[in-house]
Amino acid sequence: MRVEIVAVGTELLLGQIPDTNSQWLGEHLAANGISSQFHQHVGDNHERIVLAFRTALARSDALIVCGGLGPTQDDITRAALAEVMNVPLERDEDIVEKIRAMFASRGRTMPENNLLQADVPRGATVIPQTRGTAPGLICEVGLKVVYAVPGVPYEMSDMFERAILPDLLARQRADGSTSVITSRVLRTWGASESALAEAVAERFDALSDDGRVTIAFLASGIEGIKVRLTARGDDAAHASSLLGDEETLVRALIVEKFGDIIFGVDDETMEDVVATRLLARGVTLAVAESVTGGLIASRLVAVAGASTWFRGGIVSYASDVKYDLLKVPVGPVVSAEAAEAMAKGVRELLGADVGLSVTGVAGPDEQDGQPVGTVFVGLSFGETLEHATLRLPGDRPRVRAYSAISSLDVLRRALDRPT
Amino acid sequence: MRVEIVAVGTELLLGQIPDTNSQWLGEHLAANGISSQFHQHVGDNHERIVLAFRTALARSDALIVCGGLGPTQDDITRAALAEVMNVPLERDEDIVEKIRAMFASRGRTMPENNLLQADVPRGATVIPQTRGTAPGLICEVGLKVVYAVPGVPYEMSDMFERAILPDLLARQRADGSTSVITSRVLRTWGASESALAEAVAERFDALSDDGRVTIAFLASGIEGIKVRLTARGDDAAHASSLLGDEETLVRALIVEKFGDIIFGVDDETMEDVVATRLLARGVTLAVAESVTGGLIASRLVAVAGASTWFRGGIVSYASDVKYDLLKVPVGPVVSAEAAEAMAKGVRELLGADVGLSVTGVAGPDEQDGQPVGTVFVGLSFGETLEHATLRLPGDRPRVRAYSAISSLDVLRRALDRPT
Repeated sequence: MRVEIVAVGTELLLGQIPDTNSQWLGEHLAANGISSQFHQHVGDNHERIVLAFRTALARSDALIVCGGLGPTQDDITRAALAEVMNVPLERDEDIVEKIRAMFASRGRTMPENNLLQADVPRGATVIPQTRGTAPGLICEVGLKVVYAVPGVPYEMSDMFERAILPDLLARQRADGSTSVITSRVLRTWGASESALAEAVAERFDALSDDGRVTIAFLASGIEGIKVRLTARGDDAAHASSLLGDEETLVRALIVEKFGDIIFGVDDETMEDVVATRLLARGVTLAVAESVTGGLIASRLVAVAGASTWFRGGIVSYASDVKYDLLKVPVGPVVSAEAAEAMAKGVRELLGADVGLSVTGVAGPDEQDGQPVGTVFVGLSFGETLEHATLRLPGDRPRVRAYSAISSLDVLRRALDRPT
Repeated sequence: MRVEIVAVGTELLLGQIPDTNSQWLGEHLAANGISSQFHQHVGDNHERIVLAFRTALARSDALIVCGGLGPTQDDITRAALAEVMNVPLERDEDIVEKIRAMFASRGRTMPENNLLQADVPRGATVIPQTRGTAPGLICEVGLKVVYAVPGVPYEMSDMFERAILPDLLARQRADGSTSVITSRVLRTWGASESALAEAVAERFDALSDDGRVTIAFLASGIEGIKVRLTARGDDAAHASSLLGDEETLVRALIVEKFGDIIFGVDDETMEDVVATRLLARGVTLAVAESVTGGLIASRLVAVAGASTWFRGGIVSYASDVKYDLLKVPVGPVVSAEAAEAMAKGVRELLGADVGLSVTGVAGPDEQDGQPVGTVFVGLSFGETLEHATLRLPGDRPRVRAYSAISSLDVLRRALDRPT
């Protein structure tokens, strides 16, 4: 099963937005054992979209088309699909009703051009929308298949997981492929990609010839390095057993070299694992932020049910807010002392069991004689008042983002200590 | 002159790295009036690279190939080029000497596999390296041309500007074309893509046949709808004049239908334009956040120089933090009254000239009898204390993200009112 991804949109050709969809799809296809051998970008031009589709159908078994399904005049993927399928477009009254109802529920009148989104090539199957207005399409073209989804990333990913992936896997099974691929991502914070690769080199080398289990490293920017283990088994139980054995070996090598740097698995975020630990210990948290300016609080509030354990936060950006509200001693605000005082201050002010704080220099200029990238994390928990000193690389956005996840990691490790 | 970009590397298909090269090249080609109509990604496989090249040569006048020129076994772009050109690879002794000298100058011995980088398809012109070891290639294929450059972004961009762009422009002049493309993005918040398209439909229709100016709509998720205007002129002044005229017409249509929804142009963010207005009025800001949990503050702190006008924020997530710290009257915390009290309270507590607040229900459950998506924005500025009521769509992350940008938009509009 060879899948080709075609991303439609002149903005991609002009470089005005990055094509995150093809990257996301490539990663998720691979994780499910489906190979994608080509990607294409094409602009909002009927003849060229048709040419891109025909090119892809000639060399691949299935196409995933992203974009060009919206309600405006430059959304012409539907018409191009109809031409490639050699069928007319027909208006689907069920979709019309759904779109009308969606606008009505928001108290807005529906612009007429939204009805374009209800046009379906004859014979295509509709993937219902749950997050927007443009439905997706599954179109059979001879023995091949074209999936069309909107270019909005969260609509695309939703339709991929709900409709495209199950359909692809069913077709793959129908092709007689019965092996099952399963994977596990170990999420680490605090080691470089090359150091991790060196630590697990013996497993990497042992696996190269076998092909049943593979290890890959993904540097996912500000969220740490992911170690992805993938196993191909004869059935689900076999794949799961291969994966479990490999995970045990790889975890042992990583822990031996770096200690407790694996903070989660698969889609678990740092805030998810912090939330789990706070809940388990039955304690509440308050945060005081300077350099991160609310990034830590906003990550914590992203966890559903945060109100059980999150009291709130103070973004003490101006120095006198630190002095007045958090009782930080007047003096340099980028310092270990200030970080500890902020943690203690916010814990008391907001009536929490744990106070976490961060102060530092994100740039572009140095501050209090400290170079850009210097960050102090404060923690007040039980009888303990402590700090961690970090030297972080990168420009302003990266220093801020690294500061947020590093602070949460400091908290995670403290919550893992025995009481 | 139609240019196609082919990015080579299995890591692109697997989604392990983003393809920033195609985006960069697309942007720089457009800025120089050269259109790129297709992009492709292909893995490190000889047959498939050859197929991708032949496909591109059939539909485009020139190819820029990125990647696969390095010294390892999976760098096979050179061999694929030789096959498409139907010529042998020959070792270029000048390149051998340069690579040897480079290693020697760093006091290192050269691994033998580096010599692969000196293999050149017969008849190709070499683009000398200045930043790495793999040279680039200019290969004539019939009346068409293939440029091959390394995938390392700064080596790619150097060779593009030094060798590829001058060569492309010379070929374009020989073709008799000297046009220049320029574009402008109008960023809007508060109208749907379909409603915007309807508002400017008369311009869209007027332009379709002409081809000199085009309009496109980009739904960029939580950051509103972008309207992109692109003009192709005989020279830079002509393109700029066409673009300026079109912008005036399109702005007028949008303002007539929706009022002041265009908040910025090109890369300007909502927080950038809020910062500009706060600076211009010489006032400071404090924010009180509940549902957004620090998202607004963290967006504001992302603007360099925020310390001039940003005092800080309170993330009052627990209700009693609202009552105790912000003096919100005890009662429902998702209400217009609570939003206004939060704005007033944070303005006083942090000693700011303007207080902005937001409280609402992000879900998954309703709160205070209000359905998910209900959000109140409070504003305290001068003698004014007011609120806006919003009904936002989507799941928890989207309600929170929409709440943040909507609140900043409320502030932007207030700062635009005459004093």
